[in-house]
Amino acid sequence: MTDFKALASLLFSKDDILVLTHANPDGDTIGSGCALVLALREAGKRANLSSGDPIPGKYRFMTDLVPEEDFSPKFIVSVDVADARLLGKENEEKYASMIDLSIDHHETNRLSAKKSFVEGDSASCAETVFLLLKEAGRPITKEIADCLFVGVSTDTGCFRFANVTPRTHRIAAELLEAGAEGAKINRAMFETKSFGFLKMQQLCLEGLELFFGGKMSLFVITRKMIEETGCGEEDFDSITALSRAIEGVSLGLTIKEKADGGFKVSVRTNENVDAAAFCKKFGGGGHKRAAGCSFELPLEKVKALLLEESGKLFGEN
Amino acid sequence: MTDFKALASLLFSKDDILVLTHANPDGDTIGSGCALVLALREAGKRANLSSGDPIPGKYRFMTDLVPEEDFSPKFIVSVDVADARLLGKENEEKYASMIDLSIDHHETNRLSAKKSFVEGDSASCAETVFLLLKEAGRPITKEIADCLFVGVSTDTGCFRFANVTPRTHRIAAELLEAGAEGAKINRAMFETKSFGFLKMQQLCLEGLELFFGGKMSLFVITRKMIEETGCGEEDFDSITALSRAIEGVSLGLTIKEKADGGFKVSVRTNENVDAAAFCKKFGGGGHKRAAGCSFELPLEKVKALLLEESGKLFGEN
Repeated sequence: MTDFKALASLLFSKDDILVLTHANPDGDTIGSGCALVLALREAGKRANLSSGDPIPGKYRFMTDLVPEEDFSPKFIVSVDVADARLLGKENEEKYASMIDLSIDHHETNRLSAKKSFVEGDSASCAETVFLLLKEAGRPITKEIADCLFVGVSTDTGCFRFANVTPRTHRIAAELLEAGAEGAKINRAMFETKSFGFLKMQQLCLEGLELFFGGKMSLFVITRKMIEETGCGEEDFDSITALSRAIEGVSLGLTIKEKADGGFKVSVRTNENVDAAAFCKKFGGGGHKRAAGCSFELPLEKVKALLLEESGKLFGEN
Repeated sequence: MTDFKALASLLFSKDDILVLTHANPDGDTIGSGCALVLALREAGKRANLSSGDPIPGKYRFMTDLVPEEDFSPKFIVSVDVADARLLGKENEEKYASMIDLSIDHHETNRLSAKKSFVEGDSASCAETVFLLLKEAGRPITKEIADCLFVGVSTDTGCFRFANVTPRTHRIAAELLEAGAEGAKINRAMFETKSFGFLKMQQLCLEGLELFFGGKMSLFVITRKMIEETGCGEEDFDSITALSRAIEGVSLGLTIKEKADGGFKVSVRTNENVDAAAFCKKFGGGGHKRAAGCSFELPLEKVKALLLEESGKLFGEN
């Protein structure tokens, strides 16, 4: 299915609709899902959102807009879900075999649904949902615009990434005109940092070590630092991203002490180093630019192993 | 002068044009200036760019596009320059009294020029230059699009700030269509950080003070910190941005010790505080969310004055 008209008629001909997000929900799956539920309700239908996992705090203003209604779903839609496993354990068991419509922007989508609408070149699922609502002739209310703006903005790193197209910017313009509070949303999603996070960043930078003429960087995050700063899991992504953001660094390593002993290593690389291949040496894995591995060894031993392996990359061993 | 048509006819009726940027040049003044010079040369005219200060490394790919030509200027245009003092000492002495046309987006513009075109609600001077070139019917080449994209993107914090309008996004869309390498530019402008910058960030966070229940933040950047880290002017924008990025902060102040004595204060605010009004109290100015002022007083006195003025905002004086 590749036709917005057919997609719009299918969806808005249904009632009692359940919209599923992916697990570990992000701004795009929640924004797209909440926008759909709002638009369906606005069209006089019953609709609910279901997410496999708790909603992170900064996205809750969207789910607060769609308090749960009491009905048995007759039509099940997934948004931004590329694979049944990504529904999360509970929703996968309950719904994986019953999905009527999958709306997504992952080219790799292999969710089995009765109908699929996959726009592989769309920067966010929210872009696709926006065009669906326009095609359906549904009003883009301020609330819907806010939700879609969150999706568009978060999945493009605030319009920074290579997935941004002219269409992305034009949709952002229309969402602002529909009342989306773009700057406020961007600030909440990207800018605002907790004092604890900044404290953690400061401690990491204090302990930052550079090796191989500045090509490799190394942070260590200890339990003590986590306790002192009160940082949560959601904060560590930005810290590990920082390891690679240093000028000249091709391989950024973050060693984090685990709560139950041992160390988790997050690896971020630029185009010269394959992070997944690096981590595979230690039984880990991931993507080319972001991967991870774990060690049940003392810190000094972990550092020594990582340095040895890195040395091979930079011609020093 | 508020009419793009008149602006376009004036500029493109001239020849032997010198385009002036502001001192401490940023992405918007350089991007706007280089785009203008490229468009003027493309129209068969002689044109040069002059900047009061050295061009920071990450902007040099733009000035490299406009190697200096040999001619005596007959028409002088300034871009993004709100005040004669901002031309830098040398260009102020040489040109301040001879500016034929000032193109700017600072509402507080008080440069004395024969003609001024000030779009106070434009997020960047580059937006204004883009519309000028369109009105003039000049082609937006790939090089011009790259320069203008730098201006639009840097002056909006990569489309993050409150100055972004639907027009900003639509212009970004057109620039991408004209060939601007948006993602590459954004990566160069926003992602990579020098070691010196990160060291400066760490020192600033170490010295961070919060006041009024966390509503106001204060960093001090001393000459010693600047010497130790080797940070340049281009690094301070991100540091001052950080002052406002702290959760709960509405007024972020950065006090920087000047090379020749005295202190420069950069003020960043969220929607609850008017930065320009705040700075006006001390003889400074700027935008609603970003402004500045200067003091020839000892640090403790500067802090006391700023705290007193801030207290009025937060109901404590």
